[in-house]
Amino acid sequence: MKVLSTSKSHGGVQGVYSHASDVCACDMTFAVFAPPQAAEGHVPVLWYLSGLTCTHANVMDKGEYRRLAAELGLVVVCPDTSPRGADVPDEKDNWQFGCGAGFYLDATQAPYAKNYRMYSYIAEELPALVAANFPVDISRQAIFGHSMGGHGALTIALKNPERYRSCSAFAPIVQPTTAGWSRPAFEKYLGSDERSWRAYDATLLIEDGHRYGELLVDQGTVDGFLQDGLRPWLLEDACSKAGIALTLRMQEGYDHSYNFMSTFMDDHLKWHAARLAR
Amino acid sequence: MKVLSTSKSHGGVQGVYSHASDVCACDMTFAVFAPPQAAEGHVPVLWYLSGLTCTHANVMDKGEYRRLAAELGLVVVCPDTSPRGADVPDEKDNWQFGCGAGFYLDATQAPYAKNYRMYSYIAEELPALVAANFPVDISRQAIFGHSMGGHGALTIALKNPERYRSCSAFAPIVQPTTAGWSRPAFEKYLGSDERSWRAYDATLLIEDGHRYGELLVDQGTVDGFLQDGLRPWLLEDACSKAGIALTLRMQEGYDHSYNFMSTFMDDHLKWHAARLAR
Repeated sequence: MKVLSTSKSHGGVQGVYSHASDVCACDMTFAVFAPPQAAEGHVPVLWYLSGLTCTHANVMDKGEYRRLAAELGLVVVCPDTSPRGADVPDEKDNWQFGCGAGFYLDATQAPYAKNYRMYSYIAEELPALVAANFPVDISRQAIFGHSMGGHGALTIALKNPERYRSCSAFAPIVQPTTAGWSRPAFEKYLGSDERSWRAYDATLLIEDGHRYGELLVDQGTVDGFLQDGLRPWLLEDACSKAGIALTLRMQEGYDHSYNFMSTFMDDHLKWHAARLAR
Repeated sequence: MKVLSTSKSHGGVQGVYSHASDVCACDMTFAVFAPPQAAEGHVPVLWYLSGLTCTHANVMDKGEYRRLAAELGLVVVCPDTSPRGADVPDEKDNWQFGCGAGFYLDATQAPYAKNYRMYSYIAEELPALVAANFPVDISRQAIFGHSMGGHGALTIALKNPERYRSCSAFAPIVQPTTAGWSRPAFEKYLGSDERSWRAYDATLLIEDGHRYGELLVDQGTVDGFLQDGLRPWLLEDACSKAGIALTLRMQEGYDHSYNFMSTFMDDHLKWHAARLAR
Protein backbone atom coordinates (compact mmCIF):
# COMPACT_ATOMS: atom_id res chain seq x y z
CA MET A 1 0.00 0.00 0.00
CA LYS A 2 1.25 3.46 -0.92
CA VAL A 3 0.36 6.63 0.99
CA LEU A 4 -0.56 9.31 -1.57
CA SER A 5 -1.50 12.01 0.96
CA THR A 6 -2.56 12.55 4.55
CA SER A 7 -4.08 15.65 6.11
CA LYS A 8 -5.36 16.30 9.60
CA SER A 9 -9.11 16.92 9.67
CA HIS A 10 -11.52 17.25 12.60
CA GLY A 11 -8.90 15.77 14.89
CA GLY A 12 -8.43 12.68 12.70
CA VAL A 13 -6.56 11.95 9.49
CA GLN A 14 -7.97 12.01 5.96
CA GLY A 15 -5.67 9.93 3.81
CA VAL A 16 -5.53 8.79 0.20
CA TYR A 17 -3.84 5.50 -0.57
CA SER A 18 -3.16 3.23 -3.52
CA HIS A 19 -2.27 -0.39 -3.98
CA ALA A 20 -1.78 -2.97 -6.70
CA SER A 21 -5.10 -4.81 -6.74
CA ASP A 22 -4.96 -8.51 -7.61
CA VAL A 23 -8.71 -8.65 -8.00
CA CYS A 24 -8.95 -5.72 -10.44
CA ALA A 25 -5.55 -6.33 -12.03
CA CYS A 26 -4.61 -2.66 -11.81
CA ASP A 27 -3.58 -0.04 -9.27
CA MET A 28 -6.53 1.13 -7.20
CA THR A 29 -6.85 4.33 -5.17
CA PHE A 30 -9.03 4.77 -2.09
CA ALA A 31 -9.58 7.27 0.73
CA VAL A 32 -9.65 6.49 4.44
CA PHE A 33 -10.68 8.82 7.23
CA ALA A 34 -9.34 7.68 10.58
CA PRO A 35 -11.03 9.41 13.54
CA PRO A 36 -9.05 10.53 16.60
CA GLN A 37 -10.19 7.39 18.47
CA ALA A 38 -8.20 5.28 15.98
CA ALA A 39 -5.00 6.55 17.59
CA GLU A 40 -5.96 4.67 20.74
CA GLY A 41 -7.47 1.43 19.52
CA HIS A 42 -9.42 -0.41 16.88
CA VAL A 43 -12.64 1.25 15.75
CA PRO A 44 -15.54 0.20 13.50
CA VAL A 45 -15.32 0.73 9.77
CA LEU A 46 -17.98 2.24 7.53
CA TRP A 47 -17.79 1.72 3.77
CA TYR A 48 -19.05 4.47 1.49
CA LEU A 49 -19.65 3.52 -2.15
CA SER A 50 -19.87 6.33 -4.70
CA GLY A 51 -21.98 6.81 -7.78
CA LEU A 52 -21.44 6.91 -11.54
CA THR A 53 -18.49 9.02 -12.78
CA CYS A 54 -17.03 9.39 -9.27
CA THR A 55 -13.64 8.46 -7.90
CA HIS A 56 -12.70 8.15 -4.22
CA ALA A 57 -12.32 11.95 -4.21
CA ASN A 58 -15.84 13.24 -4.77
CA VAL A 59 -17.29 12.22 -1.43
CA MET A 60 -14.01 13.00 0.30
CA ASP A 61 -14.38 16.58 -0.94
CA LYS A 62 -18.13 17.04 -0.75
CA GLY A 63 -19.56 14.42 1.59
CA GLU A 64 -19.17 16.31 4.89
CA TYR A 65 -18.71 13.06 6.84
CA ARG A 66 -15.58 13.84 8.83
CA ARG A 67 -16.94 16.07 11.61
CA LEU A 68 -19.43 13.50 12.88
CA ALA A 69 -17.34 10.43 12.02
CA ALA A 70 -14.63 11.97 14.22
CA GLU A 71 -17.13 12.42 17.03
CA LEU A 72 -18.63 8.94 16.65
CA GLY A 73 -15.28 7.21 16.20
CA LEU A 74 -15.83 5.67 12.78
CA VAL A 75 -13.23 4.87 10.14
CA VAL A 76 -14.80 5.81 6.80
CA VAL A 77 -13.40 4.12 3.67
CA CYS A 78 -14.24 5.59 0.26
CA PRO A 79 -13.15 3.33 -2.61
CA ASP A 80 -13.05 4.13 -6.29
CA THR A 81 -16.03 3.13 -8.46
CA SER A 82 -14.19 0.98 -11.03
CA PRO A 83 -10.80 -0.23 -12.13
CA ARG A 84 -8.80 2.37 -14.07
CA GLY A 85 -5.67 2.71 -16.14
CA ALA A 86 -4.17 2.41 -19.58
CA ASP A 87 -4.66 -1.38 -19.58
CA VAL A 88 -8.29 -1.33 -18.42
CA PRO A 89 -10.87 -1.58 -21.24
CA ASP A 90 -13.18 1.43 -21.25
CA GLU A 91 -15.65 3.38 -23.37
CA LYS A 92 -14.32 6.90 -23.09
CA ASP A 93 -17.48 8.81 -23.95
CA ASN A 94 -19.92 6.58 -22.05
CA TRP A 95 -20.38 7.66 -18.42
CA GLN A 96 -22.69 4.72 -17.71
CA PHE A 97 -20.15 2.02 -18.53
CA GLY A 98 -16.49 1.21 -17.93
CA CYS A 99 -14.32 3.56 -15.88
CA GLY A 100 -16.40 5.25 -13.20
CA ALA A 101 -19.20 2.74 -13.72
CA GLY A 102 -18.15 -0.58 -12.22
CA PHE A 103 -21.62 -1.24 -10.74
CA TYR A 104 -20.08 -3.25 -7.87
CA LEU A 105 -20.34 -6.56 -9.76
CA ASP A 106 -17.87 -9.17 -10.97
CA ALA A 107 -17.90 -9.10 -14.78
CA THR A 108 -17.87 -12.45 -16.55
CA GLN A 109 -17.55 -11.28 -20.15
CA ALA A 110 -14.38 -10.57 -22.14
CA PRO A 111 -12.64 -8.15 -22.18
CA TYR A 112 -14.13 -6.85 -18.89
CA ALA A 113 -13.86 -9.92 -16.68
CA LYS A 114 -10.16 -9.38 -16.06
CA ASN A 115 -10.52 -5.99 -14.35
CA TYR A 116 -14.15 -5.21 -13.60
CA ARG A 117 -14.52 -7.17 -10.38
CA MET A 118 -15.69 -4.46 -8.03
CA TYR A 119 -17.91 -6.83 -6.05
CA SER A 120 -14.97 -8.97 -4.95
CA TYR A 121 -12.79 -5.91 -4.59
CA ILE A 122 -15.18 -4.16 -2.17
CA ALA A 123 -16.40 -7.26 -0.34
CA GLU A 124 -13.09 -9.11 -0.04
CA GLU A 125 -9.80 -7.62 -1.19
CA LEU A 126 -10.08 -4.08 0.12
CA PRO A 127 -11.42 -5.05 3.57
CA ALA A 128 -8.43 -7.37 3.99
CA LEU A 129 -6.05 -4.59 3.00
CA VAL A 130 -7.76 -2.09 5.29
CA ALA A 131 -7.76 -4.55 8.18
CA ALA A 132 -4.04 -5.13 7.72
CA ASN A 133 -3.09 -1.46 7.49
CA PHE A 134 -5.50 0.54 9.65
CA PRO A 135 -6.66 0.28 13.27
CA VAL A 136 -10.09 -1.12 12.41
CA ASP A 137 -12.23 -3.68 14.17
CA ILE A 138 -13.12 -5.65 11.05
CA SER A 139 -15.80 -7.55 12.96
CA ARG A 140 -17.71 -4.27 13.04
CA GLN A 141 -18.39 -3.17 9.45
CA ALA A 142 -21.24 -1.17 7.96
CA ILE A 143 -21.90 -0.01 4.42
CA PHE A 144 -23.67 2.81 2.63
CA GLY A 145 -23.52 4.64 -0.68
CA HIS A 146 -25.08 7.02 -3.17
CA SER A 147 -26.90 6.22 -6.43
CA MET A 148 -24.86 3.44 -8.12
CA GLY A 149 -23.06 3.22 -4.77
CA GLY A 150 -26.42 2.85 -3.02
CA HIS A 151 -27.05 -0.11 -5.32
CA GLY A 152 -23.63 -1.40 -4.35
CA ALA A 153 -24.28 -1.03 -0.62
CA LEU A 154 -27.70 -2.71 -0.80
CA THR A 155 -26.56 -5.66 -2.92
CA ILE A 156 -23.35 -6.26 -1.00
CA ALA A 157 -25.20 -6.12 2.34
CA LEU A 158 -27.97 -8.43 1.06
CA LYS A 159 -25.36 -10.93 -0.11
CA ASN A 160 -23.38 -10.69 3.17
CA PRO A 161 -25.87 -9.83 5.90
CA GLU A 162 -23.70 -11.37 8.61
CA ARG A 163 -20.73 -9.19 7.68
CA TYR A 164 -22.31 -5.71 7.66
CA ARG A 165 -24.08 -4.68 10.84
CA SER A 166 -25.97 -1.93 9.05
CA CYS A 167 -26.72 -0.69 5.56
CA SER A 168 -28.17 2.55 4.20
CA ALA A 169 -28.33 4.42 0.93
CA PHE A 170 -28.83 7.86 -0.59
CA ALA A 171 -30.93 7.72 -3.78
CA PRO A 172 -29.92 4.15 -4.66
CA ILE A 173 -30.47 2.45 -8.00
CA VAL A 174 -32.69 -0.24 -6.53
CA GLN A 175 -33.37 -2.27 -9.67
CA PRO A 176 -30.47 -1.84 -12.10
CA THR A 177 -31.53 -4.80 -14.26
CA THR A 178 -34.51 -2.85 -15.61
CA ALA A 179 -33.23 0.75 -15.52
CA GLY A 180 -32.11 2.32 -18.78
CA TRP A 181 -28.81 3.64 -17.48
CA SER A 182 -27.65 0.29 -16.11
CA ARG A 183 -29.08 -2.43 -18.38
CA PRO A 184 -26.50 -1.92 -21.17
CA ALA A 185 -23.67 -2.12 -18.63
CA PHE A 186 -25.09 -5.28 -17.05
CA GLU A 187 -25.30 -6.91 -20.49
CA LYS A 188 -21.71 -6.02 -21.38
CA TYR A 189 -20.32 -7.07 -17.99
CA LEU A 190 -22.47 -10.18 -17.42
CA GLY A 191 -23.67 -11.35 -20.84
CA SER A 192 -27.13 -11.64 -22.31
CA ASP A 193 -28.49 -14.27 -19.91
CA GLU A 194 -30.41 -12.00 -17.57
CA ARG A 195 -30.65 -14.68 -14.89
CA SER A 196 -27.03 -13.94 -14.01
CA TRP A 197 -27.90 -10.29 -13.45
CA ARG A 198 -30.15 -11.11 -10.50
CA ALA A 199 -27.13 -11.54 -8.21
CA TYR A 200 -26.48 -7.80 -8.48
CA ASP A 201 -29.96 -6.33 -8.18
CA ALA A 202 -31.26 -5.43 -4.70
CA THR A 203 -34.93 -6.03 -5.45
CA LEU A 204 -34.28 -9.33 -7.22
CA LEU A 205 -31.91 -10.54 -4.51
CA ILE A 206 -34.78 -10.00 -2.06
CA GLU A 207 -37.17 -11.76 -4.44
CA ASP A 208 -34.70 -14.66 -4.54
CA GLY A 209 -34.72 -14.99 -0.76
CA HIS A 210 -31.90 -12.76 0.46
CA ARG A 211 -32.75 -10.92 3.66
CA TYR A 212 -31.41 -8.02 5.70
CA GLY A 213 -32.59 -6.77 9.07
CA GLU A 214 -33.37 -3.13 8.37
CA LEU A 215 -32.51 -0.53 5.77
CA LEU A 216 -32.48 3.28 5.70
CA VAL A 217 -32.94 5.01 2.34
CA ASP A 218 -33.18 8.76 1.68
CA GLN A 219 -34.44 9.96 -1.69
CA GLY A 220 -34.88 13.53 -2.94
CA THR A 221 -38.24 14.32 -4.52
CA VAL A 222 -36.81 16.52 -7.30
CA ASP A 223 -34.02 14.10 -8.18
CA GLY A 224 -33.92 14.05 -11.99
CA PHE A 225 -33.22 10.29 -11.99
CA LEU A 226 -36.06 9.39 -9.63
CA GLN A 227 -38.69 8.17 -12.10
CA ASP A 228 -36.54 6.23 -14.57
CA GLY A 229 -33.31 5.36 -12.81
CA LEU A 230 -33.91 5.06 -9.08
CA ARG A 231 -37.58 4.12 -8.41
CA PRO A 232 -37.39 3.49 -4.65
CA TRP A 233 -40.97 2.21 -4.67
CA LEU A 234 -39.64 -1.02 -6.22
CA LEU A 235 -37.47 -1.53 -3.14
CA GLU A 236 -40.37 -0.57 -0.90
CA ASP A 237 -42.51 -3.22 -2.58
CA ALA A 238 -39.81 -5.90 -2.37
CA CYS A 239 -39.07 -5.14 1.30
CA SER A 240 -42.74 -5.10 2.15
CA LYS A 241 -43.30 -8.56 0.63
CA ALA A 242 -40.16 -9.92 2.30
CA GLY A 243 -40.75 -8.39 5.72
CA ILE A 244 -37.59 -6.28 5.59
CA ALA A 245 -37.83 -3.14 7.74
CA LEU A 246 -37.19 -0.37 5.22
CA THR A 247 -37.20 3.24 6.36
CA LEU A 248 -37.70 5.14 3.09
CA ARG A 249 -37.67 8.90 3.53
CA MET A 250 -38.75 11.02 0.58
CA GLN A 251 -36.93 14.33 1.10
CA GLU A 252 -38.95 17.23 -0.25
CA GLY A 253 -37.14 19.47 -2.74
CA TYR A 254 -33.80 17.66 -2.74
CA ASP A 255 -31.97 16.68 -5.94
CA HIS A 256 -29.43 13.96 -6.74
CA SER A 257 -26.31 15.96 -5.85
CA TYR A 258 -23.89 16.01 -2.95
CA ASN A 259 -25.97 18.87 -1.56
CA PHE A 260 -28.65 16.26 -0.96
CA MET A 261 -26.52 13.49 0.46
CA SER A 262 -24.35 15.75 2.63
CA THR A 263 -27.55 17.15 4.18
CA PHE A 264 -28.53 13.70 5.42
CA MET A 265 -25.00 12.42 6.06
CA ASP A 266 -25.31 13.03 9.82
CA ASP A 267 -28.48 10.94 10.03
CA HIS A 268 -26.82 8.04 8.22
CA LEU A 269 -23.65 8.21 10.32
CA LYS A 270 -25.76 8.09 13.48
CA TRP A 271 -27.79 5.19 12.08
CA HIS A 272 -24.62 3.19 11.48
CA ALA A 273 -22.86 4.20 14.70
CA ALA A 274 -25.85 3.08 16.77
CA ARG A 275 -25.89 -0.34 15.12
CA LEU A 276 -22.11 -0.76 15.15
CA ALA A 277 -22.13 -0.10 18.89
CA ARG A 278 -24.51 -2.95 19.66
CA MET B 1 -28.04 38.66 -12.38
CA LYS B 2 -28.21 35.19 -13.91
CA VAL B 3 -29.02 32.04 -11.94
CA LEU B 4 -26.52 29.35 -12.97
CA SER B 5 -27.74 26.68 -10.56
CA THR B 6 -29.66 26.17 -7.34
CA SER B 7 -29.78 23.10 -5.14
CA LYS B 8 -31.47 22.46 -1.81
CA SER B 9 -28.99 21.86 0.98
CA HIS B 10 -29.48 21.55 4.74
CA GLY B 11 -32.95 23.05 4.35
CA GLY B 12 -31.66 26.11 2.50
CA VAL B 13 -30.57 26.81 -1.06
CA GLN B 14 -27.03 26.72 -2.41
CA GLY B 15 -27.01 28.78 -5.58
CA VAL B 16 -24.45 29.89 -8.14
CA TYR B 17 -25.02 33.18 -9.94
CA SER B 18 -23.31 35.41 -12.46
CA HIS B 19 -23.58 39.03 -13.44
CA ALA B 20 -21.90 41.59 -15.68
CA SER B 21 -19.60 43.45 -13.27
CA ASP B 22 -19.05 47.13 -14.01
CA VAL B 23 -16.21 47.29 -11.51
CA CYS B 24 -14.27 44.34 -12.96
CA ALA B 25 -15.43 44.94 -16.54
CA CYS B 26 -16.23 41.26 -17.06
CA ASP B 27 -18.79 38.65 -16.07
CA MET B 28 -18.32 37.51 -12.49
CA THR B 29 -19.60 34.31 -10.85
CA PHE B 30 -20.39 33.91 -7.16
CA ALA B 31 -22.08 31.43 -4.82
CA VAL B 32 -24.76 32.24 -2.25
CA PHE B 33 -26.11 29.93 0.41
CA ALA B 34 -29.47 31.09 1.70
CA PRO B 35 -30.49 29.39 4.97
CA PRO B 36 -34.09 28.28 5.61
CA GLN B 37 -34.68 31.44 7.69
CA ALA B 38 -34.20 33.53 4.52
CA ALA B 39 -37.56 32.25 3.28
CA GLU B 40 -39.23 34.15 6.10
CA GLY B 41 -37.30 37.40 6.35
CA HIS B 42 -34.01 39.22 5.98
CA VAL B 43 -31.01 37.58 7.59
CA PRO B 44 -27.38 38.61 8.19
CA VAL B 45 -24.80 38.04 5.48
CA LEU B 46 -21.35 36.53 5.93
CA TRP B 47 -18.71 37.02 3.22
CA TYR B 48 -16.19 34.27 2.63
CA LEU B 49 -13.12 35.20 0.57
CA SER B 50 -11.11 32.37 -0.97
CA GLY B 51 -7.40 31.87 -1.50
CA LEU B 52 -5.02 31.76 -4.45
CA THR B 53 -6.12 29.62 -7.44
CA CYS B 54 -9.68 29.26 -6.13
CA THR B 55 -12.99 30.20 -7.70
CA HIS B 56 -16.32 30.52 -5.89
CA ALA B 57 -16.60 26.72 -6.14
CA ASN B 58 -13.79 25.44 -3.92
CA VAL B 59 -15.26 26.49 -0.60
CA MET B 60 -18.77 25.72 -1.82
CA ASP B 61 -17.61 22.13 -2.38
CA LYS B 62 -15.21 21.67 0.52
CA GLY B 63 -15.94 24.33 3.13
CA GLU B 64 -18.63 22.46 5.10
CA TYR B 65 -20.37 25.71 6.07
CA ARG B 66 -23.97 24.93 5.15
CA ARG B 67 -25.09 22.74 8.04
CA LEU B 68 -24.31 25.30 10.71
CA ALA B 69 -25.10 28.38 8.58
CA ALA B 70 -28.56 26.85 8.10
CA GLU B 71 -28.92 26.42 11.84
CA LEU B 72 -27.62 29.91 12.65
CA GLY B 73 -29.58 31.63 9.89
CA LEU B 74 -26.69 33.13 7.93
CA VAL B 75 -26.49 33.91 4.23
CA VAL B 76 -22.98 32.96 3.12
CA VAL B 77 -21.64 34.61 -0.04
CA CYS B 78 -18.56 33.13 -1.72
CA PRO B 79 -17.20 35.36 -4.50
CA ASP B 80 -14.56 34.54 -7.08
CA THR B 81 -10.94 35.54 -6.37
CA SER B 82 -10.31 37.66 -9.47
CA PRO B 83 -11.80 38.85 -12.72
CA ARG B 84 -11.73 36.22 -15.48
CA GLY B 85 -12.34 35.85 -19.18
CA ALA B 86 -10.82 36.14 -22.63
CA ASP B 87 -10.50 39.92 -22.28
CA VAL B 88 -8.88 39.90 -18.83
CA PRO B 89 -5.06 40.14 -18.86
CA ASP B 90 -3.49 37.15 -17.14
CA GLU B 91 -0.25 35.18 -16.77
CA LYS B 92 -1.37 31.66 -17.52
CA ASP B 93 1.42 29.76 -15.78
CA ASN B 94 1.67 32.02 -12.72
CA TRP B 95 -0.68 30.96 -9.90
CA GLN B 96 0.37 33.90 -7.75
CA PHE B 97 -0.75 36.61 -10.18
CA GLY B 98 -3.67 37.37 -12.47
CA CYS B 99 -6.66 35.05 -12.66
CA GLY B 100 -7.22 33.38 -9.29
CA ALA B 101 -4.91 35.91 -7.62
CA GLY B 102 -6.74 39.22 -7.38
CA PHE B 103 -5.45 39.91 -3.84
CA TYR B 104 -8.60 41.93 -3.05
CA LEU B 105 -7.03 45.22 -4.16
CA ASP B 106 -7.81 47.82 -6.82
CA ALA B 107 -5.00 47.73 -9.38
CA THR B 108 -3.71 51.05 -10.63
CA GLN B 109 -1.31 49.88 -13.30
CA ALA B 110 -1.99 49.12 -16.96
CA PRO B 111 -3.15 46.71 -18.25
CA TYR B 112 -4.54 45.44 -14.92
CA ALA B 113 -6.35 48.52 -13.64
CA LYS B 114 -9.31 47.96 -15.93
CA ASN B 115 -10.34 44.58 -14.48
CA TYR B 116 -8.42 43.84 -11.29
CA ARG B 117 -10.52 45.82 -8.85
CA MET B 118 -11.46 43.13 -6.38
CA TYR B 119 -11.41 45.52 -3.42
CA SER B 120 -14.21 47.66 -4.84
CA TYR B 121 -15.95 44.59 -6.16
CA ILE B 122 -16.10 42.86 -2.76
CA ALA B 123 -16.63 45.98 -0.65
CA GLU B 124 -19.08 47.83 -2.89
CA GLU B 125 -20.48 46.30 -6.07
CA LEU B 126 -21.26 42.78 -4.95
CA PRO B 127 -22.88 43.79 -1.63
CA ALA B 128 -25.21 46.09 -3.56
CA LEU B 129 -26.11 43.29 -5.96
CA VAL B 130 -26.63 40.82 -3.13
CA ALA B 131 -28.74 43.31 -1.18
CA ALA B 132 -30.94 43.85 -4.23
CA ASN B 133 -31.43 40.18 -5.05
CA PHE B 134 -31.38 38.19 -1.80
CA PRO B 135 -33.24 38.50 1.51
CA VAL B 136 -30.28 39.88 3.43
CA ASP B 137 -30.10 42.47 6.18
CA ILE B 138 -27.20 44.43 4.70
CA SER B 139 -26.79 46.36 7.95
CA ARG B 140 -25.55 43.09 9.44
CA GLN B 141 -22.45 41.96 7.50
CA ALA B 142 -19.44 39.96 8.60
CA ILE B 143 -16.40 38.78 6.68
CA PHE B 144 -13.88 35.94 6.77
CA GLY B 145 -11.57 34.10 4.44
CA HIS B 146 -8.68 31.71 3.90
CA SER B 147 -5.06 32.50 3.02
CA MET B 148 -5.20 35.25 0.34
CA GLY B 149 -8.87 35.50 1.30
CA GLY B 150 -7.88 35.90 4.95
CA HIS B 151 -5.75 38.84 3.84
CA GLY B 152 -8.80 40.13 1.97
CA ALA B 153 -11.09 39.78 4.99
CA LEU B 154 -8.62 41.47 7.37
CA THR B 155 -7.83 44.40 5.08
CA ILE B 156 -11.43 45.01 4.01
CA ALA B 157 -12.62 44.90 7.63
CA LEU B 158 -9.80 47.20 8.78
CA LYS B 159 -10.71 49.68 6.05
CA ASN B 160 -14.44 49.45 6.83
CA PRO B 161 -14.76 48.63 10.54
CA GLU B 162 -18.21 50.18 10.75
CA ARG B 163 -19.55 47.99 7.96
CA TYR B 164 -18.48 44.51 9.14
CA ARG B 165 -19.59 43.50 12.60
CA SER B 166 -17.02 40.74 12.79
CA CYS B 167 -13.96 39.47 10.98
CA SER B 168 -11.98 36.24 11.15
CA ALA B 169 -9.48 34.35 9.05
CA PHE B 170 -8.03 30.92 8.41
CA ALA B 171 -4.27 31.03 7.78
CA PRO B 172 -4.30 34.59 6.42
CA ILE B 173 -1.47 36.28 4.54
CA VAL B 174 -1.02 38.99 7.16
CA GLN B 175 1.74 41.00 5.50
CA PRO B 176 1.56 40.54 1.73
CA THR B 177 3.86 43.49 1.01
CA THR B 178 6.87 41.54 2.29
CA ALA B 179 5.93 37.95 1.44
CA GLY B 180 7.58 36.37 -1.58
CA TRP B 181 4.39 35.02 -3.09
CA SER B 182 2.57 38.37 -3.04
CA ARG B 183 5.22 41.09 -3.55
CA PRO B 184 5.51 40.56 -7.34
CA ALA B 185 1.72 40.76 -7.70
CA PHE B 186 1.54 43.93 -5.61
CA GLU B 187 4.21 45.54 -7.80
CA LYS B 188 2.43 44.62 -11.03
CA TYR B 189 -1.00 45.69 -9.76
CA LEU B 190 0.04 48.81 -7.82
CA GLY B 191 3.36 49.95 -9.27
CA SER B 192 6.80 50.28 -7.74
CA ASP B 193 5.95 52.91 -5.13
CA GLU B 194 5.53 50.67 -2.12
CA ARG B 195 3.74 53.37 -0.14
CA SER B 196 0.63 52.62 -2.19
CA TRP B 197 0.82 48.96 -1.15
CA ARG B 198 0.18 49.83 2.51
CA ALA B 199 -3.54 50.26 1.85
CA TYR B 200 -3.81 46.51 1.21
CA ASP B 201 -1.66 45.06 3.98
CA ALA B 202 -3.33 44.19 7.31
CA THR B 203 -0.28 44.79 9.48
CA LEU B 204 0.58 48.08 7.78
CA LEU B 205 -3.02 49.28 7.88
CA ILE B 206 -2.86 48.78 11.63
CA GLU B 207 0.53 50.54 11.76
CA ASP B 208 -1.08 53.40 9.87
CA GLY B 209 -3.83 53.77 12.42
CA HIS B 210 -6.66 51.55 11.22
CA ARG B 211 -8.42 49.72 14.01
CA TYR B 212 -10.84 46.84 14.46
CA GLY B 213 -12.53 45.62 17.62
CA GLU B 214 -11.49 41.98 17.75
CA LEU B 215 -10.17 39.35 15.36
CA LEU B 216 -10.16 35.55 15.32
CA VAL B 217 -7.38 33.78 13.40
CA ASP B 218 -6.75 30.04 13.15
CA GLN B 219 -3.43 28.81 11.80
CA GLY B 220 -2.22 25.24 11.30
CA THR B 221 1.22 24.44 12.69
CA VAL B 222 2.29 22.22 9.76
CA ASP B 223 1.05 24.63 7.11
CA GLY B 224 3.78 24.65 4.44
CA PHE B 225 3.31 28.40 3.91
CA LEU B 226 3.53 29.34 7.58
CA GLN B 227 7.12 30.54 7.82
CA ASP B 228 7.47 32.46 4.57
CA GLY B 229 3.98 33.35 3.38
CA LEU B 230 1.65 33.67 6.35
CA ARG B 231 3.64 34.63 9.50
CA PRO B 232 0.76 35.28 11.91
CA TRP B 233 3.23 36.59 14.51
CA LEU B 234 3.46 39.78 12.45
CA LEU B 235 -0.28 40.31 12.95
CA GLU B 236 0.06 39.38 16.60
CA ASP B 237 2.74 42.02 17.01
CA ALA B 238 0.76 44.70 15.15
CA CYS B 239 -2.42 43.96 17.10
CA SER B 240 -0.55 43.93 20.39
CA LYS B 241 0.94 47.38 19.73
CA ALA B 242 -2.41 48.75 18.56
CA GLY B 243 -4.53 47.25 21.31
CA ILE B 244 -6.59 45.12 18.92
CA ALA B 245 -8.00 42.00 20.59
CA LEU B 246 -6.60 39.21 18.43
CA THR B 247 -7.43 35.60 19.23
CA LEU B 248 -4.71 33.67 17.40
CA ARG B 249 -5.06 29.92 17.70
CA MET B 250 -2.16 27.78 16.50
CA GLN B 251 -3.79 24.49 15.55
CA GLU B 252 -1.44 21.57 16.12
CA GLY B 253 -0.85 19.30 13.13
CA TYR B 254 -3.10 21.10 10.66
CA ASP B 255 -1.99 22.05 7.15
CA HIS B 256 -3.12 24.76 4.71
CA SER B 257 -5.91 22.76 3.04
CA TYR B 258 -9.67 22.72 3.24
CA ASN B 259 -9.29 19.88 5.73
CA PHE B 260 -7.89 22.49 8.10
CA MET B 261 -10.38 25.27 7.47
CA SER B 262 -13.45 23.02 7.37
CA THR B 263 -12.42 21.64 10.77
CA PHE B 264 -12.66 25.10 12.32
CA MET B 265 -15.52 26.37 10.15
CA ASP B 266 -18.07 25.79 12.93
CA ASP B 267 -16.05 27.90 15.38
CA HIS B 268 -15.87 30.77 12.93
CA LEU B 269 -19.55 30.61 12.04
CA LYS B 270 -20.44 30.75 15.73
CA TRP B 271 -18.01 33.66 16.24
CA HIS B 272 -19.73 35.63 13.49
CA ALA B 273 -23.30 34.65 14.40
CA ALA B 274 -22.78 35.79 17.99
CA ARG B 275 -21.54 39.20 16.88
CA LEU B 276 -24.12 39.60 14.11
CA ALA B 277 -26.86 38.97 16.68
CA ARG B 278 -25.77 41.83 18.93
